[in-house]
Amino acid sequence: MKLKVRSDLLFDFPAGTEAIVSVQAAASPDQKIISESLTITPNARIVQDKADERGERRFRAAFSGETRIVYEAVIDNGLRISIPPDVPQRAWCDLPQEALLYLTSSRYCPSDKFVAFANREFGAIANGGARVRAVLDWIHEHVDYVPGVSNSETTAERTFVDRAGVCRDFSHLGITLCRALNIPARAVSAYAFQLDPPDFHAVFEVYLGGGWWLVDPTRLAPIDGLVRVGIGRDAADIAFLTTNGPCRSIEQSVVVEQAVDAMAA
Amino acid sequence: MKLKVRSDLLFDFPAGTEAIVSVQAAASPDQKIISESLTITPNARIVQDKADERGERRFRAAFSGETRIVYEAVIDNGLRISIPPDVPQRAWCDLPQEALLYLTSSRYCPSDKFVAFANREFGAIANGGARVRAVLDWIHEHVDYVPGVSNSETTAERTFVDRAGVCRDFSHLGITLCRALNIPARAVSAYAFQLDPPDFHAVFEVYLGGGWWLVDPTRLAPIDGLVRVGIGRDAADIAFLTTNGPCRSIEQSVVVEQAVDAMAA
Amino acid sequence: MKLKVRSDLLFDFPAGTEAIVSVQAAASPDQKIISESLTITPNARIVQDKADERGERRFRAAFSGETRIVYEAVIDNGLRISIPPDVPQRAWCDLPQEALLYLTSSRYCPSDKFVAFANREFGAIANGGARVRAVLDWIHEHVDYVPGVSNSETTAERTFVDRAGVCRDFSHLGITLCRALNIPARAVSAYAFQLDPPDFHAVFEVYLGGGWWLVDPTRLAPIDGLVRVGIGRDAADIAFLTTNGPCRSIEQSVVVEQAVDAMAA
Amino acid sequence: MKLKVRSDLLFDFPAGTEAIVSVQAAASPDQKIISESLTITPNARIVQDKADERGERRFRAAFSGETRIVYEAVIDNGLRISIPPDVPQRAWCDLPQEALLYLTSSRYCPSDKFVAFANREFGAIANGGARVRAVLDWIHEHVDYVPGVSNSETTAERTFVDRAGVCRDFSHLGITLCRALNIPARAVSAYAFQLDPPDFHAVFEVYLGGGWWLVDPTRLAPIDGLVRVGIGRDAADIAFLTTNGPCRSIEQSVVVEQAVDAMAA
Repeated sequence: MKLKVRSDLLFDFPAGTEAIVSVQAAASPDQKIISESLTITPNARIVQDKADERGERRFRAAFSGETRIVYEAVIDNGLRISIPPDVPQRAWCDLPQEALLYLTSSRYCPSDKFVAFANREFGAIANGGARVRAVLDWIHEHVDYVPGVSNSETTAERTFVDRAGVCRDFSHLGITLCRALNIPARAVSAYAFQLDPPDFHAVFEVYLGGGWWLVDPTRLAPIDGLVRVGIGRDAADIAFLTTNGPCRSIEQSVVVEQAVDAMAA
Repeated sequence: MKLKVRSDLLFDFPAGTEAIVSVQAAASPDQKIISESLTITPNARIVQDKADERGERRFRAAFSGETRIVYEAVIDNGLRISIPPDVPQRAWCDLPQEALLYLTSSRYCPSDKFVAFANREFGAIANGGARVRAVLDWIHEHVDYVPGVSNSETTAERTFVDRAGVCRDFSHLGITLCRALNIPARAVSAYAFQLDPPDFHAVFEVYLGGGWWLVDPTRLAPIDGLVRVGIGRDAADIAFLTTNGPCRSIEQSVVVEQAVDAMAA
Repeated sequence: MKLKVRSDLLFDFPAGTEAIVSVQAAASPDQKIISESLTITPNARIVQDKADERGERRFRAAFSGETRIVYEAVIDNGLRISIPPDVPQRAWCDLPQEALLYLTSSRYCPSDKFVAFANREFGAIANGGARVRAVLDWIHEHVDYVPGVSNSETTAERTFVDRAGVCRDFSHLGITLCRALNIPARAVSAYAFQLDPPDFHAVFEVYLGGGWWLVDPTRLAPIDGLVRVGIGRDAADIAFLTTNGPCRSIEQSVVVEQAVDAMAA
Repeated sequence: MKLKVRSDLLFDFPAGTEAIVSVQAAASPDQKIISESLTITPNARIVQDKADERGERRFRAAFSGETRIVYEAVIDNGLRISIPPDVPQRAWCDLPQEALLYLTSSRYCPSDKFVAFANREFGAIANGGARVRAVLDWIHEHVDYVPGVSNSETTAERTFVDRAGVCRDFSHLGITLCRALNIPARAVSAYAFQLDPPDFHAVFEVYLGGGWWLVDPTRLAPIDGLVRVGIGRDAADIAFLTTNGPCRSIEQSVVVEQAVDAMAA
């Protein structure tokens, strides 16, 4: 699908606030950036970080006062497909080096605590895609999407007890269970088509076969309606805005639409 | 100082245990590897990961049964010096991209919770080297080195309450306080000269001025008696051995000696 | 001081909600209930629990729909005085049996974790009233009164790290530090004169010499401006309303005034 | 069953250690103390607390140096029966006042977090005895008895994730789930017939119909092989020994045998 995304953030920053911003579409093989623009008002000097091996692109800046950050892009992610049941889980020795970081526990994803549960619940299912899909089915069946029950400190352990949360919590639980099964899993922030209400979305991806597969444990957006942005161990790594002190959000909007193909006209 | 290090690990692994091993000296500019050897008995195919931008070198293997892993090296870390009080803290925009990861909270280092305390306690001290040294002094004065009070789940928050811990806990608390002050800080595993009893050591490093500075909050080893091994966000990233299931340690020893310089004879 | 208190709670309860309500002044020797009334609209059958050995008086009822609970009382607490510095700490064997429950950790007051800190910080001060006053001074100096940083799950451990909280958090930290020093300490909910904005207040009391001494670690209300209501291990025990399911607060007000003495007219 | 119990504790106490000891059989209607003796060597002055409304009997003392505490008793608990499926859950207004304390969360039993799970899993089962038995069945099916995975800080939340623990953990999880279903539940320490290896045991009891019913979620001892000792909100309240500082256990044994009835000879 060809998608047109637009995020518009208006913040009030105390003078000299340092910020890391993650709103740009990732440079990953499963999505092609056709066009994009980044507009900061008033103009500010930014440091554009290069896409790292994960494809994430962030920029840094020092902001003072009311500042608007608008990112627009047209993306083609037409090659992305759902994870096939038979794509195999890889031995650690066969993983690319960059995947190793996503095998073990992180702040919101204490996978070491879930080894017993994960093996008891999913151990009988063929490893690989089928097992990941079983994890997703389990979450869908046992966890309710309920805004307001969780906060920025909620871990997968807590969501497993609460049986409720939002996209971030669903992803943390999915990542945690996959890592407990020795499957590399990492958090992904995304623009999502048809998400209601529109907002930044949190999904995750697993390494199976020869690559990373994107999954959405909330089932709120179609897999080819997702545009990757940030990638990290868990939500702590993929905030759209990280600052060195408090700041105030004035307004924030995200729009994701199917791009009209001018060429087809 | 020129150091000769040797680690000797004997483990019993269930058949087909997958492992990531981090015992090799890091490839970092402040230490020179003069010679080294890695011996695994019985012989096993290993995947040697390349040193990443942090300098960490790890290898992967699948082990079965009793396995001995011996690493020996001669290292010259003569260029390493203690952090000067006047080396300045950098603005986020002036940090190298690789340092950004070490600005924010991680599993054992919830620095976001310590912003109020850190600013209250250290805010009046000139930023940069002097402030980091004040953090180290505070830890030295308020936390006791007590084996047995902490475990693999102990966070810096808990150590701050307990006022006691071991090298790993001291480092987590130091990292946490530095990040709360917006100073990039990361965990380092090390071989340490004169550590008693000899063992792997956990220290940390901060990014100030134009580079990473190694510090030992326990004051148990001289700064030029340290050989870096693993580097990561916190202890979760720098275990000398990570496996995909339980295994049994049979024997483990670490020896660090001053290297006799044959040329001088 | 003679005080006139009034609490007025308006809630919307799903049909058949079971509730425990703690709004009545406690029957304790340091305050005399001159007059009081409890009005529930619409009328509901209540089970009035008798004052237990702690003096707390609660009632139970099943509520349906919009319900108003109004409690009014005139109280004379003129005999209450601040804790003298020289009132001694008692040996466990010399405590009344009812005080034992308040020696050890509870949900929000994990005093076992604070033994090292408490002894390091307060161990040199003469035990008894002086030591408790030193605890109160420490809290006053190191913790800021900041609404919004804590929630219903915040423990004393977290407040000790955050260095900020509200009356409930201040009390939890005070209770925790006193218990860590082997002084019985328990939470008290109260009506408080001159509290701004007016609301239920959380304070605590310690057992020293031959009785319980009330203290307010927030210093927001004069000690003779407090009317005790509930008493328990920590805030979990002294909620003004506990229900067996969710309900909705519509309106809530607390008024505490100096009582005009008709006799003086 | 008529049982003969004996506990023998040998501790080394620093001079003047204050202690609360809970080893005596409780004075509860479902067990009759036929004979008993308490021997402390060397002799020490003790303060014998009276059985409170919960039936728990504890004593206090100050100990110095090596001290042996031996308790022996013959108990008839022949009237105790397993909880019938049809004994009904009571409305809060119909509970005895002393049961209210056991409706809400405590340190190791955060029942407020389990409301969603408990209702999802057990809500369809008839309330009362049948529902409590379903909770016990669930624990039996989903949690493994594994010494060593838990410690003195393990909460029911953690055990729910770990799916493993010992008697104390099983009881905490059972108490938590019952309270989440609005059933009063409290921890009980016990001597247990046929427990292997012999030790103090942790079980719990629920208030249904007109009384407290004892249950053993581990299924390690027959219900009429249990002798109640301490009673409290959770394990924090029922330790057999609580001291005001560290002490050292030298030796500890518990023996529970069927009492030979002399009359039958």
